[in-house]
Amino acid sequence: MKLLQDTISKIKLLDTEAMQKTKKRLDSLTKPVGSLGVLEDIAVKLAGIQRETNLDVKKKAVVVCAADHGVVEEGISVFPQETTKLMVKNFLIGGAAINALARTAGADVVVADVGIKGPEMCHPGLINARVRNGTANFTRGPAMQREEAVAALETGIKLACLQVEQGCRVLAAGEMGIGNTTASSAVLAAISGLTPEEVTGRGTGIDEKTLAVKRDAVARALAVNKPDPNDAIDVLAKVGGLEIGAMAGLIIGSAAMGVPVVIDGFISGAAALLAAKIASLSREYMLASHLSEEPGHQLMLELLQLKPILSLDMRLGEGTGAVLAFPLLDAAVNVVKEMVTFEELANK
Amino acid sequence: MKLLQDTISKIKLLDTEAMQKTKKRLDSLTKPVGSLGVLEDIAVKLAGIQRETNLDVKKKAVVVCAADHGVVEEGISVFPQETTKLMVKNFLIGGAAINALARTAGADVVVADVGIKGPEMCHPGLINARVRNGTANFTRGPAMQREEAVAALETGIKLACLQVEQGCRVLAAGEMGIGNTTASSAVLAAISGLTPEEVTGRGTGIDEKTLAVKRDAVARALAVNKPDPNDAIDVLAKVGGLEIGAMAGLIIGSAAMGVPVVIDGFISGAAALLAAKIASLSREYMLASHLSEEPGHQLMLELLQLKPILSLDMRLGEGTGAVLAFPLLDAAVNVVKEMVTFEELANK
Repeated sequence: MKLLQDTISKIKLLDTEAMQKTKKRLDSLTKPVGSLGVLEDIAVKLAGIQRETNLDVKKKAVVVCAADHGVVEEGISVFPQETTKLMVKNFLIGGAAINALARTAGADVVVADVGIKGPEMCHPGLINARVRNGTANFTRGPAMQREEAVAALETGIKLACLQVEQGCRVLAAGEMGIGNTTASSAVLAAISGLTPEEVTGRGTGIDEKTLAVKRDAVARALAVNKPDPNDAIDVLAKVGGLEIGAMAGLIIGSAAMGVPVVIDGFISGAAALLAAKIASLSREYMLASHLSEEPGHQLMLELLQLKPILSLDMRLGEGTGAVLAFPLLDAAVNVVKEMVTFEELANK
Repeated sequence: MKLLQDTISKIKLLDTEAMQKTKKRLDSLTKPVGSLGVLEDIAVKLAGIQRETNLDVKKKAVVVCAADHGVVEEGISVFPQETTKLMVKNFLIGGAAINALARTAGADVVVADVGIKGPEMCHPGLINARVRNGTANFTRGPAMQREEAVAALETGIKLACLQVEQGCRVLAAGEMGIGNTTASSAVLAAISGLTPEEVTGRGTGIDEKTLAVKRDAVARALAVNKPDPNDAIDVLAKVGGLEIGAMAGLIIGSAAMGVPVVIDGFISGAAALLAAKIASLSREYMLASHLSEEPGHQLMLELLQLKPILSLDMRLGEGTGAVLAFPLLDAAVNVVKEMVTFEELANK
């Protein structure tokens, strides 16, 4: 709990001086004022986060947090629980979507086991940071104990530290965990007060019948556990997931170190909601990437007051949408660094 | 006229076999079927365009067509006409937004004078392909003669050929020309039958008073010239622009050579509308990039049945939105090339 509290206390308001200077430079460049729209907003926000006008987004990583969910035994997914482990193997051999897309963006893929079920995997590329052996089935009681929720958050903080120590200047929150859209729906319902119908979608692609089962599981999770909407750690412990907690910690840790963190889709969004409840200033360090097909995602982004920049009808997770937004950060920074002003142009 | 007709006759329907094979491969990869959304649609479309399953989008270029507009004398822009030439100089020294963004995407910037007003510029990086010395003021008569409109189209076809001969596998249509949102509004109104109020926006950022002047100029252009909505070359000649014609030719030329062409914003959209009218199959070779701030852009994309992938509130032109979409093409191709199938994963 001390690491979490210390980290929260380190998060600063964005540096308005660096933001104003960057805005002023953008307004002097050879283009109509404001004509690069959101790209200019991103540059200004990055300046506030990095407390610098000399922006640096070169080294980027997506941290993929993997964990299992006890609620899978309710039959809420088309994929069996073992898929979590299988996909982690895929991340490690470089054959998954997140690998192809991170390579395209020139970013590292960091894979952490924060709560997979079963024997630990042994691979030099895997960070073993398991908090517990998967969550319990939250339709029958809490997913985890409160101390475990704090441990998941602190694991995420440590993952952020590790990457920033290695020179990363931008992080993205990615995940793998069969059943985690169910947990994310429960987190969203608990925090927003919306109904299971409003916040529960088809995840990786379930049919009408399974969707009804999934909604019922969310409803039962809320009825059995009664998570306290004003206590995000309580929500995380009762109806969340270990990777959701780790991603929330990753966001809080990034914010404390002045590093922007790109949010991916629905599960990453649940983590962002929790992070913003636990450490309200962390919201300032988030950048939304894409709008997912999952209906609850739009609601999350509205609660977070974040606007997605990509519309790709994706529903894959892993951090895929977030790394697709990485080139736009490079673009925003290169506009500030490489464009000339009208004054410079006149003298050339 | 022969080059234009020959080029149109070379445009083929997309290769459905290559598309089906690519779709089948995408469905076998380690992800839920269809979960990469638009990224998968892009990969399938590229296969149909390139008539190949071994996709190649490595070498990319944005062709920036520059020209002047006689309608500028009506006072429809905040920037003086000389800005066209000044910005072309900027493109050539590498200091404009399109240069910074193309460098970020690893793409070439090709600059062509297709109708700037005044003495020709001499620079080794500039393609001198001027059709005429700027257009005439179309509120008083046609912008150009019909033969000049055909020459602008054929210039664009030649520009496409030149790039494809040099190994480009993806092109983007970019432009520079003070006054060209006014011409694009007139083209959209002529083709769609919409009113000047519906299709005319603030361009680079004009005030309410100038907007009224601009709408009036569009209304007078239509009343004086009576462009025939069923004859796109007539529309181009009477109320279009030389860079709009060249971009339409670039699109038609790309399509004839089996090269995808990324559409930018409102002016690029006007060129795309004309290209689709002149050579209806060329539409299949277009990819929309971003949705511009200009209100008419959404209408154009609807007419073209294209869906933008970026929402960045941009209104700069030059091809900036198009090159920002380039990394998404790389991403789509790398998904097809680098991801493993579930069968391959099981055997690893």
